[in-house]
Amino acid sequence: MTLESNAPAIILVEPQMGENIGAAARAMLNFGLTDLRLVKPRDGWPNERAVAMASRADVVLQNTRVFDNLQDAIADLHHVYATTARPRDMIKKVVTPKAAAKELREFTGAGENCGILFGKESWGLSSDDVTYADTIITVPLNPDFSSINLAQAVLLVAYEWFQEADETPPEVMKNEERLATKEELGHLFQRIENELDARGYFEPIQARKSAILKNMRNMFQRFNLMETDIRALQGIVKGLSHNKKKPSED
Amino acid sequence: MTLESNAPAIILVEPQMGENIGAAARAMLNFGLTDLRLVKPRDGWPNERAVAMASRADVVLQNTRVFDNLQDAIADLHHVYATTARPRDMIKKVVTPKAAAKELREFTGAGENCGILFGKESWGLSSDDVTYADTIITVPLNPDFSSINLAQAVLLVAYEWFQEADETPPEVMKNEERLATKEELGHLFQRIENELDARGYFEPIQARKSAILKNMRNMFQRFNLMETDIRALQGIVKGLSHNKKKPSED
Repeated sequence: MTLESNAPAIILVEPQMGENIGAAARAMLNFGLTDLRLVKPRDGWPNERAVAMASRADVVLQNTRVFDNLQDAIADLHHVYATTARPRDMIKKVVTPKAAAKELREFTGAGENCGILFGKESWGLSSDDVTYADTIITVPLNPDFSSINLAQAVLLVAYEWFQEADETPPEVMKNEERLATKEELGHLFQRIENELDARGYFEPIQARKSAILKNMRNMFQRFNLMETDIRALQGIVKGLSHNKKKPSED
Repeated sequence: MTLESNAPAIILVEPQMGENIGAAARAMLNFGLTDLRLVKPRDGWPNERAVAMASRADVVLQNTRVFDNLQDAIADLHHVYATTARPRDMIKKVVTPKAAAKELREFTGAGENCGILFGKESWGLSSDDVTYADTIITVPLNPDFSSINLAQAVLLVAYEWFQEADETPPEVMKNEERLATKEELGHLFQRIENELDARGYFEPIQARKSAILKNMRNMFQRFNLMETDIRALQGIVKGLSHNKKKPSED
């Protein structure tokens, strides 16, 4: 995968804890984002705690830019999104992370620069910060517990961005194995039947036999057995039908 | 919002850092999940660092259950998912968090208990752990940086679960049968293992035993066994492991 050259910027406005900056960087790189910008980080920059939490995503931190104010941080962008948990008394479009991701893909695909604002841990973005955004992103959350960690919020937005990539694998992946043929299945049934018969399993009521075998076939058909399963089951049946090493009363 | 009574359980297998357990609890509650289970947490339980990171989600931690082994932690579940980053050489369905969420909604809507396994920070789930799962969840990630934080992985799965809530629940076909619990499955495996052992199936190379048993668990997990299947299979195993009526050279 090549990282898109104009993938959205993540802009943390007055972040407080270095740990969260590091965790945000890691979450960004997990989903192909590398442009991290900080506006007035409380504990200054660089920050050791951020590096520790970033794991091997320190490449993101090395290229992080620090700004004195929000306007400078977004100067080169064409579209700005603000993430907020609380409803704001503003007439702005509000979208989910998923809907935002679709829009972001369209914009960046057209060569336009985008960025997403995240507020400080304690209180989020100020109303003033939000005025710089075109659109609000709100994550649908448990209304009884809607306090989301800063890095977690970054993760969700980055995740949805990545999901919208064309190369995202299909939801269900196929594997290389092939299904067993009915003939292979038939051999397995026959073996089980023979071994059970040799041990008197269907006695004393021989009439039960056809009912038992029908149930067994129905059951195994339902399993969508692969060719390798048949071989494994043949092995188990063979193993079980050996006599015990030491006879017991069983 | 009312929290669903049988929302999926989150099972952290041998988690190392209390901070991650706390962050996972917070992420869970953000998206309406409350059933947290720990298998052999490295630093014991309760854990102060977990409480500190959980923010106000300590209600999740207060109800957290600790188990000595994975089997006990999943005994009451009907469907188990394993989250893995690396591809595994196993025949199991692999789904994205989004596809998993759709499935989980169907299962829980039908009254079935579900759980999702997450491995330790350093290396994820062992191959052995994964054999206890029906399905693998893999988050599509930047292939150049696919090391995702434990709590972040929990967040994404919980997020997708919550996203599926608003949609009209799919019509689930009612079935008189019920799926086997993992405990019932465990008893079947144990019986097969004991019977094979008594017959020297794993000799002369005892080392093969764990590989054979792993493959067997993987295979049977895939079958979606019903409770009646377990009984039928128990009967077959019992029948096969009787001695033959007339001894032969076999």
